[in-house]
Amino acid sequence: MRVFLFLGCLALFAFSSAGAIANSKPASLDAALANKALVVDFYQQVLFERNADAIDQFIGDTYIQHNPNLPDGKAALKALIKALPKPDKAVGKIVRAIAEGDLVVLHVNYYGWPGPQGGAVVDIFRVADHKIVEHWDVVQAVPAQSANDNTMF
Amino acid sequence: MRVFLFLGCLALFAFSSAGAIANSKPASLDAALANKALVVDFYQQVLFERNADAIDQFIGDTYIQHNPNLPDGKAALKALIKALPKPDKAVGKIVRAIAEGDLVVLHVNYYGWPGPQGGAVVDIFRVADHKIVEHWDVVQAVPAQSANDNTMF
Repeated sequence: MRVFLFLGCLALFAFSSAGAIANSKPASLDAALANKALVVDFYQQVLFERNADAIDQFIGDTYIQHNPNLPDGKAALKALIKALPKPDKAVGKIVRAIAEGDLVVLHVNYYGWPGPQGGAVVDIFRVADHKIVEHWDVVQAVPAQSANDNTMF
Repeated sequence: MRVFLFLGCLALFAFSSAGAIANSKPASLDAALANKALVVDFYQQVLFERNADAIDQFIGDTYIQHNPNLPDGKAALKALIKALPKPDKAVGKIVRAIAEGDLVVLHVNYYGWPGPQGGAVVDIFRVADHKIVEHWDVVQAVPAQSANDNTMF
């Protein structure tokens, strides 16, 4: 009986420990990191490389657009990307990416747009079922002068 | 002896379960959520209520500033907040907050600034040892017209 209890005890302990390991990254954090990888991949292929054909792979059938220059839906994004010339050099870089829950934030430095010193942009994407379904952004031209030496990035 | 083993077993189980609960949110996620609460509290007290006296409580002795209008350090932030009139109504609202690791992102709608339709702002803060130690932002005036009905928020 002692051995039986001891084994039961071990089983309980093993079960609880397994639970601890399985929970050490909760689903929401795993999902957030997967969402971040998806959004970074999308951004590089579509926004930087201007590959409009990649849009279907990343953007949902519903795509709620908050950028005031674009209507809802992926057709408008496709039209925009197709209208831009294929870049022969880097058009920008993702400086940092922050993900929580279903949201992914990219802090992006564009080169030579929208001002001569380039642009500071934050894009926020909402991901559902492995597709991007909503987008917000804020765009500012980098000014020629700064009160600090840190750049906007 | 059986009771003793049973109690030992319960203790092991309780210990393991406590471990599982403690690990169900890893330290980094706990820290990120604590950072978010700190930054939201700071933003409301200092940016919205313009309480310059609260700055010491939130901002580190080192404060790296990427907003091109401000030099490094909390003294410049204090001077800015003190120079602004105390608001008699809400100056804006935090629309969403996203935290990961040591970074907290706030998506903010300002009313009547920097344009007549207000502003869309993203502030990014880095937190270390429960103090805000670095800040980036992107600011855009909300345009009068939009290609969609979703607002910029």
